[in-house]
Amino acid sequence: MRRKSLEGADCPIARSLENIGEWWSLLIVRDAFLGKRRFGEFQKSTGVAKNILAARLKKLVACGIFRLEPASDGSAYQEYVLTEKGRALGMVVMTLRVWGTRWLFGDVPQTTVLDRSTGEEIVGIGFRTRTGRLVPPTDLEFVTQRIPKMRRRSQPRKRRAETSASV
Amino acid sequence: MRRKSLEGADCPIARSLENIGEWWSLLIVRDAFLGKRRFGEFQKSTGVAKNILAARLKKLVACGIFRLEPASDGSAYQEYVLTEKGRALGMVVMTLRVWGTRWLFGDVPQTTVLDRSTGEEIVGIGFRTRTGRLVPPTDLEFVTQRIPKMRRRSQPRKRRAETSASV
Repeated sequence: MRRKSLEGADCPIARSLENIGEWWSLLIVRDAFLGKRRFGEFQKSTGVAKNILAARLKKLVACGIFRLEPASDGSAYQEYVLTEKGRALGMVVMTLRVWGTRWLFGDVPQTTVLDRSTGEEIVGIGFRTRTGRLVPPTDLEFVTQRIPKMRRRSQPRKRRAETSASV
Repeated sequence: MRRKSLEGADCPIARSLENIGEWWSLLIVRDAFLGKRRFGEFQKSTGVAKNILAARLKKLVACGIFRLEPASDGSAYQEYVLTEKGRALGMVVMTLRVWGTRWLFGDVPQTTVLDRSTGEEIVGIGFRTRTGRLVPPTDLEFVTQRIPKMRRRSQPRKRRAETSASV
């Protein structure tokens, strides 16, 4: 069932999918946003087998989405904390949440997304510029710069992935 | 490796993951946004085995992300066209693209995302209310309404998923 690796793909979408790994890894990221930090908490929430969860968390640490920290209560446990790269995944999780809320609950939408300060309902998502303007997906332009081949060869793929993962 | 099904999950994120299916299904959605419509085009682009791609496309049609149409050139081929629900996934694909562009190309970002009209760089996503205000992810509030149990039981999960998938 495994297709060709996307790790070195030129397309950022393909490379993102490879980096995050299996789909349900995003549920671990979701749980982290909800305040969960420990193996047992993730295990209880996702219901996944311990050995599989352990392998998945190991990958998420290796690719720089989580980092390990000593437990905040001084116990011997370790805690999984989202890095800046991991927190940036919040927008992927949020977009999925808004999509699922709109399209997957039929005529019984279970969750409404509101602006906390005014109570107004959220009806769309857009991309934000540095000055705070919101741009619709149709107005995006992706400007690709070719990486010179020499540079590519001097950095083996594995190494580059590790470098980009550090935060 | 398969975990418990998320199809009937209360969480819209979990349900989205289940509905889209395997991660790389989003590459098919990406290809559709790039103008691809035929089996052979998706096969060439994703490099996935034909039987696996066929099963995947079948699922994407069944859950209402694609619909089948007669070929636009009058030939005997069928074409896969994104539904409104499928087009709405564009935000998820785009968000992954922006994340991957920022975090997975090390110090050699290969693609920059710009607002076509002003040339301003995109730095994140924003959420829009009905009146057009922009709300940062940290100000979102998800208000969950419990679906009454009676209603739940009267609609078997399989049936509900099909209903919600139609567009």
